[in-house]
Formats: sequence, C-alpha cells, structure tokens
Amino acid sequence: MIRPPCTPKIILASASAIRAEIMRNAGITFSVNPTNIDEEPIKKKCLQKGRTTAQLVEELALAKASGLRPSGKEIIVGADQVLEFNGKVFDKPSSVQEARTRLIELRGQEHRLIGAVCILQKGANPWCHISTTKLRMRQFSDEFLRGYIEVEGEALTSCVGAYKFEGRGALLFDRVEGDFFSILGLSLLPLLSELRRRGALTT
Amino acid sequence: MIRPPCTPKIILASASAIRAEIMRNAGITFSVNPTNIDEEPIKKKCLQKGRTTAQLVEELALAKASGLRPSGKEIIVGADQVLEFNGKVFDKPSSVQEARTRLIELRGQEHRLIGAVCILQKGANPWCHISTTKLRMRQFSDEFLRGYIEVEGEALTSCVGAYKFEGRGALLFDRVEGDFFSILGLSLLPLLSELRRRGALTT
Repeated sequence: MIRPPCTPKIILASASAIRAEIMRNAGITFSVNPTNIDEEPIKKKCLQKGRTTAQLVEELALAKASGLRPSGKEIIVGADQVLEFNGKVFDKPSSVQEARTRLIELRGQEHRLIGAVCILQKGANPWCHISTTKLRMRQFSDEFLRGYIEVEGEALTSCVGAYKFEGRGALLFDRVEGDFFSILGLSLLPLLSELRRRGALTT
Repeated sequence: MIRPPCTPKIILASASAIRAEIMRNAGITFSVNPTNIDEEPIKKKCLQKGRTTAQLVEELALAKASGLRPSGKEIIVGADQVLEFNGKVFDKPSSVQEARTRLIELRGQEHRLIGAVCILQKGANPWCHISTTKLRMRQFSDEFLRGYIEVEGEALTSCVGAYKFEGRGALLFDRVEGDFFSILGLSLLPLLSELRRRGALTT
C-alpha cells in the first residue's frame, strides 16, 4: 500500500526518535542513518551573512542530509528545528540546569519553533519545507516547575524548548498555534506530498 | 508534580484508547470507566429541536459523563466527536464496506470534525469545550485506497472518518486546520486548564 514496487529507498538522516516515530506511524518504510555534522561553522556563517532563522534551519537540515552520500536514487530526508525567543535562537539546552533557566525565561511568554525538513536525491533538485509555530507558555508555579524538572530529568536536554509537547510538555502551555507535527520537529503532510511526487509513496 | 495532595480523582468516561493515551502522555493520573449510553434518543431529540451539530456533540459528551454517578468530588470527563460533511453528520462507520464508501465520498473534499469534552463534578457547574477542525482529503488513487483498506481493516470502523490521523490516516490528507488533539478526539489544552482550575492538577 505504502510503497509502489521499484520505488526509491528513503533514509532518515536524523537521530531524533520522535521524527522516526512520526514517519513510522504514518506507515512509511525507511531506514535511519543519522549524520554527525558540526553545526557551529554553519551557524557562524549564517550569522556573518545576516541570514534569517529560517535560512539557518534550512542550512542545518540540508547539511544533515548532505552528510550521506546516496549511491543510487535513495531519498535522503534531513530535518532540524530551533527555538526563537526575543530575537535569540536557542538550540537544545546542554544541561538540566540550563533547561531550568530556559523554562523560567519562557514562562508566561510566547516563543516560536522554526523547523525545516528537506530531501536530497541524486539527479533531482533539493526540496525544503520551512514551518513556524507559535507556543505560549502559561504562568506555571515554581512548585509545578520543580515537579516537572524532577520527573523529566535529563530528557529535558533532548529538545530545544526543554519540553516534549507530545508528552508532559503539554502541561506547560495554554495556547499553541500551528501544526502539531511541525511542533514535534517534522512537518509530515508536506513531506508525504513530496515523497508521493518523487514516486516513493503510492499516490 | 502532576497531582497536588488531596485532589479530586479523575475518571474518564470513554472507551476510546486514543483519549486515554492523550491524557496518559500528558502525565495525568486517572481511571477509565466507559459508560454505555443509547445515543439514538439524544440524536433524535436534537434533530427534532433543530439543534446544531455542536449542541448535539455536547449533549452526547455530557450524556456519557452523566452515566457515572460520582460519590464524592470525583471529576468525570466525557467526550464525543462527530464528522460533518455537506450538511450531514456521520458517526463511526458500522462496517469496512461503509468505511470504504465514506472514504470515497470524502475524497478530494473538505470535512469538519466537531468534538466536545466535558467535566461533571458534584456541587459544581458542568464544563464543556467544543472544538471544530477542518480536514481536506487529497485526491488519492483507487490503488492507494485498496491498499489503505487492506492494511487498516476493521480498525476503520473505530473512527468517525475511517482514519486514525495519528497513524496511517495522515496519508489521506493534504491540508488540515485545527488542533491535533481535537482531531484525535480530545481537546487537551482546554481540558488541562479546567482540571487546574478545579484543583486536580498543580498550577
């Protein structure tokens, strides 16, 4: 049903468990081959050139996909996501303490998640989709925050906003605007559409 | 973290696996006690009185919650969802054949999911939240449909639109507008907010 015969293989160039889960849940057949890129030079270059956050995220997603060398007609899927707040761009917090500081900074405020998903394929133009979602964190109590950090622990460092919106992270919010899959880090419907266009899924 | 001490117990009066999963993922502690109500008299009454679809769904959600008799300050959560298309209201399809007919009818068209989640609690006013989401099914091929029905089988009869949007159902769509949790059948953020207001979750 999902893959017509003789279709290009799909490789997800991301170590993100939730991205793989989103694709698996939709019934896509694919393999995972995360690439390890050094993001710093890309960030520095984008900053020097005055690039927007969306352009930075696109660069990062493309760089991840470019880390794999397709031998044939494989479809390489890359993705990235950053958090934008008050003109600053945040990556994943590096410690639970940093996650705590971030949550306090975001509390009662609106922030944006900027995501990119891209496809690289030999002999075809690259494709990229950018998504923006807005989330408002509620004015949660210090007691709530203590409990939240205690329960989530190290997992807080695995997401840009120190929350998994598909899990307990939902408890942090009173308003979200935008696509759920994009919040989680992979804009599924645009990706499915492009995979169909490239003959990797039954239309 | 999630429940302050001496808080009211939460009971979900729904047999829906996805509703329980949504609440569980958000870290809510609750028990499940589905009620079995006869929906036909409610639908008939609403039709006779010229009620809107939103009013019908609210009645159905309240009826499910009313099926439980709270002994103390328990919070009873009820929920319902119907599909509206071309002025018609659809409940779950009763067979795979009916699901197939429905998918063909909805193909290439936009439909709406109307959902209600409500809370009943002794000595407090009932609370109800209504959600509307719009989904456009893409113009999928007959080949795709055959494969989709083959893979999903009897599961198609467990959802109003013959799709689980959180699973392979996403393959049916090219555009959705609205909250993901509401599409799945339980508007999580408004529910969390009301549970906090009633002291059932840490603020």
